[in-house]
Amino acid sequence: MTAPAPADHRFLRALARQPVDRTPVWMMRQAGRYLPEYRAARERAGDFMTLCRTPELACEVTLQPLRRFALDAAILFSDILTIPDALGLGLHFVEGEGPRFERPLRDAAAIRALRRLETETDLAYVLDAVRLIRRELDGRVPLIGFSGSPWTLACYMVEGGSPGDFARIKTLIYDEPALAHHLLDHLAGAVTDYLNAQIRAGAEAVQIFDTWGGALSTPAFEAFSHRYLQQVVGGLIRQQDGRAVPVIVFTKGGGLWLEALAATGADALGIDWTIELGAARRRVGDRVALQGNLDPAILRTRPAVIRAEVERLLASYGAGSGHVMNLGHGITPDIPVEHAAAFVAAVAEFSPAFHR
Amino acid sequence: MTAPAPADHRFLRALARQPVDRTPVWMMRQAGRYLPEYRAARERAGDFMTLCRTPELACEVTLQPLRRFALDAAILFSDILTIPDALGLGLHFVEGEGPRFERPLRDAAAIRALRRLETETDLAYVLDAVRLIRRELDGRVPLIGFSGSPWTLACYMVEGGSPGDFARIKTLIYDEPALAHHLLDHLAGAVTDYLNAQIRAGAEAVQIFDTWGGALSTPAFEAFSHRYLQQVVGGLIRQQDGRAVPVIVFTKGGGLWLEALAATGADALGIDWTIELGAARRRVGDRVALQGNLDPAILRTRPAVIRAEVERLLASYGAGSGHVMNLGHGITPDIPVEHAAAFVAAVAEFSPAFHR
Repeated sequence: MTAPAPADHRFLRALARQPVDRTPVWMMRQAGRYLPEYRAARERAGDFMTLCRTPELACEVTLQPLRRFALDAAILFSDILTIPDALGLGLHFVEGEGPRFERPLRDAAAIRALRRLETETDLAYVLDAVRLIRRELDGRVPLIGFSGSPWTLACYMVEGGSPGDFARIKTLIYDEPALAHHLLDHLAGAVTDYLNAQIRAGAEAVQIFDTWGGALSTPAFEAFSHRYLQQVVGGLIRQQDGRAVPVIVFTKGGGLWLEALAATGADALGIDWTIELGAARRRVGDRVALQGNLDPAILRTRPAVIRAEVERLLASYGAGSGHVMNLGHGITPDIPVEHAAAFVAAVAEFSPAFHR
Repeated sequence: MTAPAPADHRFLRALARQPVDRTPVWMMRQAGRYLPEYRAARERAGDFMTLCRTPELACEVTLQPLRRFALDAAILFSDILTIPDALGLGLHFVEGEGPRFERPLRDAAAIRALRRLETETDLAYVLDAVRLIRRELDGRVPLIGFSGSPWTLACYMVEGGSPGDFARIKTLIYDEPALAHHLLDHLAGAVTDYLNAQIRAGAEAVQIFDTWGGALSTPAFEAFSHRYLQQVVGGLIRQQDGRAVPVIVFTKGGGLWLEALAATGADALGIDWTIELGAARRRVGDRVALQGNLDPAILRTRPAVIRAEVERLLASYGAGSGHVMNLGHGITPDIPVEHAAAFVAAVAEFSPAFHR
């Protein structure tokens, strides 16, 4: 089989709101612990960061889900916290507790001393992985690169781990807004450089994970998250090797702010499961495509329940292009592989009817 | 000083959207660990549930914040999980980890075996506390009674504690919806009885805490939370001793569903800080009053920052009645008392300008 030219991939066509034969589908965290072959690779690597830092291993786990399911995109296997790790904060993972930094940003001096990211050297392992994965994919499906948003990175860097009640980072933005803006501006520059380097290395689309945007009030979201999403999107390479490079912005819990998110300049918005696809589509019109939004908890149930929900989501979005099916958040380790398979297969089965 | 007739209290007038001299204010969890006198009472009681179960102690801590701040309402000191505790699940608190049940609902048999709540006997201690607090308040400010929503109670009862990723309860609603509805219908009956008993004992307003409604997709929220909020509100005593008893529904994370929440029959909606008061008011019109919505994280900063945010919130709501100032969620133990004082004082200082 000859690989189609990249622009013909239905994932990229759907992001451009061009006609497709069926709705494309991928899953956030599709290369993850629910796959036995992933767990085996992780065990061989010894720890999570070795998996991220070794291009051959990152490539291997990136490709694993594509061997099982008819997915329409691959996503670089990496972590959203590679930038702060590269900046010297010392990322490590505590079993069952998520990411931790050895040297979180605990005062103004630490924030002001943060050095500039030198992506090509600091994160060479990521760019090597992107190049290797592109080569191995050989045009079968597009490769998505990604980064955490400036706000989301700042949350982890200031809190020292998962933000919990956001006590430190919210004190920073409300009590020392100038210092917060200094940090966020620095991170926006780093995220822009990092995503552009991924694009130059071969990423055919990029996604910005604004995991914690939804924890903010509307004006705080505008000032401390949205503004820097816009800054990043505005600085991205949008054409590479003669093809458009679409940008997906995913603010978890951002359903109230879809119009503002559509105005960032992104090509598509990721949405979580709290908002209806149809309602979201009516609000953003033809300004952006939408990606989402099955509640990943549904993957725990039964294939019949998963299939019914996929059909409901497709009907909610309605006829026409501009939708990439996905979960509303990452797939969790306890999901049976055959349930993930049922999700992907249901999209292939039910979606052609919406594209005639 | 002679106590005004209850209908003249600005808290009740604002909930009825009648003219007030200034915006009324209270704080969710105003009787809480940020107060040294609360910590002392809790220490004397030995543990949290003894504080709840001893009417004299519950009364004492209910009144504590009123001695410090010019609050416009008292809220019964109790816990949202008294109903499941009374139904035999065995509530206890693990330091730093929140509530736990000794006997969570782990299977269909446990759900079907759940007995009917006999409020007057099972929760006599709550009703005794309500009567005692009303007597001690002597008409100074109205007393708010409360309960968890059916959905929120079900989350804790099925998960066995704070719901985390909602794995068990979401599997229940998606995999066994009939069983979930059986549980929720049972709980809706219990919540209705419980709130009506509080109203008969003297509660002058009631609030339903739908703490976990925001974790659901729109159709799941409609089916498993909203429907039972409506059932409870429809079953409440709305007149007692010749005065109206307003009902406040607070779905945390429910900003997308304000119109549906306004249609439950509630007099007012509690809102968290993610949605702007002005935007919420435009959406609900004159159907309901609004209560909220300062991000409690702001209370950690400085009085000047707190005052500026209060002024901003008042301006966002705009002129006229129908707003009760509050936090978007409970005040946390680490808040300095003088910051809580600054919040309450700022409402008294800035709000009269919006009621001329």
